[in-house]
Amino acid sequence: MSISIGLLGFGKTGSLVAQELVKDSEIQLKWVGRRVIQPNLKFASHALGHYEGFAPFVAASEIDENFIKSNPVDLIIDFSVGASSKLYQMFANQGVKIVSAISKYSDAELLNLSKASASSAILSSPNITLGINWLLVASKLLKQMIPHADVEIVEEHFRDKKEISGTAIKIAEHLNLENNKHINSIRVGGIVGKHEVIFGLPFQTIRLTHESISLSAFGTGAIVAAKWLVHKDNGLYRMESMFYEKFIQHINTLVTQ
Amino acid sequence: MSISIGLLGFGKTGSLVAQELVKDSEIQLKWVGRRVIQPNLKFASHALGHYEGFAPFVAASEIDENFIKSNPVDLIIDFSVGASSKLYQMFANQGVKIVSAISKYSDAELLNLSKASASSAILSSPNITLGINWLLVASKLLKQMIPHADVEIVEEHFRDKKEISGTAIKIAEHLNLENNKHINSIRVGGIVGKHEVIFGLPFQTIRLTHESISLSAFGTGAIVAAKWLVHKDNGLYRMESMFYEKFIQHINTLVTQ
Amino acid sequence: MSISIGLLGFGKTGSLVAQELVKDSEIQLKWVGRRVIQPNLKFASHALGHYEGFAPFVAASEIDENFIKSNPVDLIIDFSVGASSKLYQMFANQGVKIVSAISKYSDAELLNLSKASASSAILSSPNITLGINWLLVASKLLKQMIPHADVEIVEEHFRDKKEISGTAIKIAEHLNLENNKHINSIRVGGIVGKHEVIFGLPFQTIRLTHESISLSAFGTGAIVAAKWLVHKDNGLYRMESMFYEKFIQHINTLVTQ
Amino acid sequence: MSISIGLLGFGKTGSLVAQELVKDSEIQLKWVGRRVIQPNLKFASHALGHYEGFAPFVAASEIDENFIKSNPVDLIIDFSVGASSKLYQMFANQGVKIVSAISKYSDAELLNLSKASASSAILSSPNITLGINWLLVASKLLKQMIPHADVEIVEEHFRDKKEISGTAIKIAEHLNLENNKHINSIRVGGIVGKHEVIFGLPFQTIRLTHESISLSAFGTGAIVAAKWLVHKDNGLYRMESMFYEKFIQHINTLVTQ
Repeated sequence: MSISIGLLGFGKTGSLVAQELVKDSEIQLKWVGRRVIQPNLKFASHALGHYEGFAPFVAASEIDENFIKSNPVDLIIDFSVGASSKLYQMFANQGVKIVSAISKYSDAELLNLSKASASSAILSSPNITLGINWLLVASKLLKQMIPHADVEIVEEHFRDKKEISGTAIKIAEHLNLENNKHINSIRVGGIVGKHEVIFGLPFQTIRLTHESISLSAFGTGAIVAAKWLVHKDNGLYRMESMFYEKFIQHINTLVTQ
Repeated sequence: MSISIGLLGFGKTGSLVAQELVKDSEIQLKWVGRRVIQPNLKFASHALGHYEGFAPFVAASEIDENFIKSNPVDLIIDFSVGASSKLYQMFANQGVKIVSAISKYSDAELLNLSKASASSAILSSPNITLGINWLLVASKLLKQMIPHADVEIVEEHFRDKKEISGTAIKIAEHLNLENNKHINSIRVGGIVGKHEVIFGLPFQTIRLTHESISLSAFGTGAIVAAKWLVHKDNGLYRMESMFYEKFIQHINTLVTQ
Repeated sequence: MSISIGLLGFGKTGSLVAQELVKDSEIQLKWVGRRVIQPNLKFASHALGHYEGFAPFVAASEIDENFIKSNPVDLIIDFSVGASSKLYQMFANQGVKIVSAISKYSDAELLNLSKASASSAILSSPNITLGINWLLVASKLLKQMIPHADVEIVEEHFRDKKEISGTAIKIAEHLNLENNKHINSIRVGGIVGKHEVIFGLPFQTIRLTHESISLSAFGTGAIVAAKWLVHKDNGLYRMESMFYEKFIQHINTLVTQ
Repeated sequence: MSISIGLLGFGKTGSLVAQELVKDSEIQLKWVGRRVIQPNLKFASHALGHYEGFAPFVAASEIDENFIKSNPVDLIIDFSVGASSKLYQMFANQGVKIVSAISKYSDAELLNLSKASASSAILSSPNITLGINWLLVASKLLKQMIPHADVEIVEEHFRDKKEISGTAIKIAEHLNLENNKHINSIRVGGIVGKHEVIFGLPFQTIRLTHESISLSAFGTGAIVAAKWLVHKDNGLYRMESMFYEKFIQHINTLVTQ
């Protein structure tokens, strides 16, 4: 079975994600929504270095009900901006599912997701990489199993990232840590992104470390999320939902071995 | 509720474990079995630096049915040698549960455990630290969720540890890795013990790292195992069983949140 | 003062190096030698995303004495192949200095370098990054200061790198270690390149770790080497020479503080 | 040649240091100064688990000119408290050299060292481990060679260490970093002590990491310092002085190779 996909956003991350979508044999990238279209660059495939022209660009302003009806897809992957959420109800009405990798939504935008999820399956994750989501779930489970452990988060990023990593803040929330006391932010050189959760017991330490090598990791995550979401009922899902579900599934297999 | 415990073994690790047992308010260390008794040192408590005399030493050769009947305990913690398993059936017959932290058993000795577990609850683990067991379970789950990832194990120990870490071998078995190809053994200086499992994907890596600071970590693990095992039915348990059970318990809570 | 440079090689690494050369205000990239020239791509600048046309490509076969006389440069940076060393005597005769970052030379090719260095200054380094060269020098000094320490090298690279890292072998040679016993090679996912030297003493460990984020690091190193080499007399230099010289210079300042 | 030594201080660290002194064949531990003497424990050797009685304890209040004249040593190693510095002039007058490992001195006490160093050789270091001193020197040299790198310090210690690591502060001063901005302090579980200096460049990172396994590392450092100091003229030395001297010595050998 093949999943047909429309991608929103073709910035630094979006174009790397498109590259991963094009490489996956079970996925068909139908079109790519973009704020502005350059007249001499009609196909995302060309921008990705392919000779054949496929996955045409479409201006964001032209994505409406008519467009979707004549360019139907199973699922939208959204790497654009929070404002695109105003299209979600329309997508949902057309039976299109949505994977959103937008890193920050306003409250009004969150409402768009919530409403649209009554009519379709929507998964939203500010950091859709497999590694980070595994880190979230695994560290939460570890915290509950050794509640007396001390927990600290270390996040390392490139020098120009001014704010604290949103992912680190999310991990801290997951672990019920006071953010401003337990997140340690290192800023040096060109580090793509590293998150470490340290659990300290009196006689041992456990560390869970995720290191990003390239932003293409977002593509891998979005693909896994998409393949999972197409089988899901209406509702609003987090990336962790998938991990919890898979954890349970595998744990039960393991235990009965 | 307090758990009364008999400890077998008072070597380098055994005495550190005894120290942890004595510190735990929910545990009563009743006696300590030891190969040879020094005439002027009758109490484990003295060897541990306490002024009061409690937890008397008993020679291994004197631990028999009569001894147990007059010195009853809820549970035995075994940090001695594989040969002590010949006592397990007798313990089991008296309704005593057993936590065994013996690192290597012969096949004949394993049979002792298996037989005795028909009449009592026995938990056996070659590395009973919380951290290593969490590593085992968490890395197995991660492997099943990203089966296409490359996996390598790095283990670091003090220079004089000649053989490959038994714990690393166990991790490799858990992950269905060919031991001799994927375990990397580093031997330098006085490192107590470090195990790392590296998962590599094209654009990201995940590392699970456990570092031992002191052999007292075996005491913490044995205590947690003991407190879990006292509620269990007859049968042979691995330390992982406890972790899987706790994982499932916590996952279900999380998912329903 | 500005240094005029000719670059040999425009492969994966060579083009990243070119990008760094173009960004440096004290360097002028005059031309780029390349095996084959594509008719519709005449300037390296275009391939690097610049609108202006500069740094023209020149076919390797056309680089001869006449070409150099009419396209003079202060220094050649070579990221091509070992065979280019047959041009070195000609460059040297024209007073052009050479920074070679070729990773492997045959014995015959090494002779080309050695001969040409009688007439010019040549620096040759199989891994010209600042970090690796610092690692070489610093770990050698540490080894001499704590000769009784155990030393192990760990190198991590992307899965498809089949052979042992040449840089790790060089480090091992520098430290008088038997390569095949003390280099531990980890191959997973897309790791760009990581080298770690571990020094173990009975009660402490010291680790020196270099991690490559991008092959552009070769550009940074080549530039630093070039700026140092332009002030040097005829002779064959290694990248370490520069580091030793700078170490001495700085140490003397420090000691007199 | 054997060095005769008097040790001041027999606390947690002092006793581990004594153990190392006793093990070294080139050193003779003559006596151990201690605040209070227990009547039934006359020899440090007994407290260290030896059967023979040697290295007698002496009460701090009895260490005066007469005592030193009748119990002469080549060198004092001081792991006691800052106040012991009031004895230094007297030691110096007797031709005794001093290795001080006191972590914090008041200004008045520092004056004691400075005055006494006119008559003897005194080496003072708040963290006398080999690893930390190598880290200080190597990171300072690296900073000078790549001045444009971003530098961050990470220090990890056991939970109950409330203040910022004095060693981390010293490293920051060495590197001209603003302490409060570039030191990241992690406090979890029972970590003995870990210091890491991270150098970040746009395309690569270099990390220098020192990890303490046991406080006995202070013994190793004190011994190396003592063996170096006995050959030195009057003056006040820092542990780094020794490292700089050895660096220069080795660098010159290397360069002429």
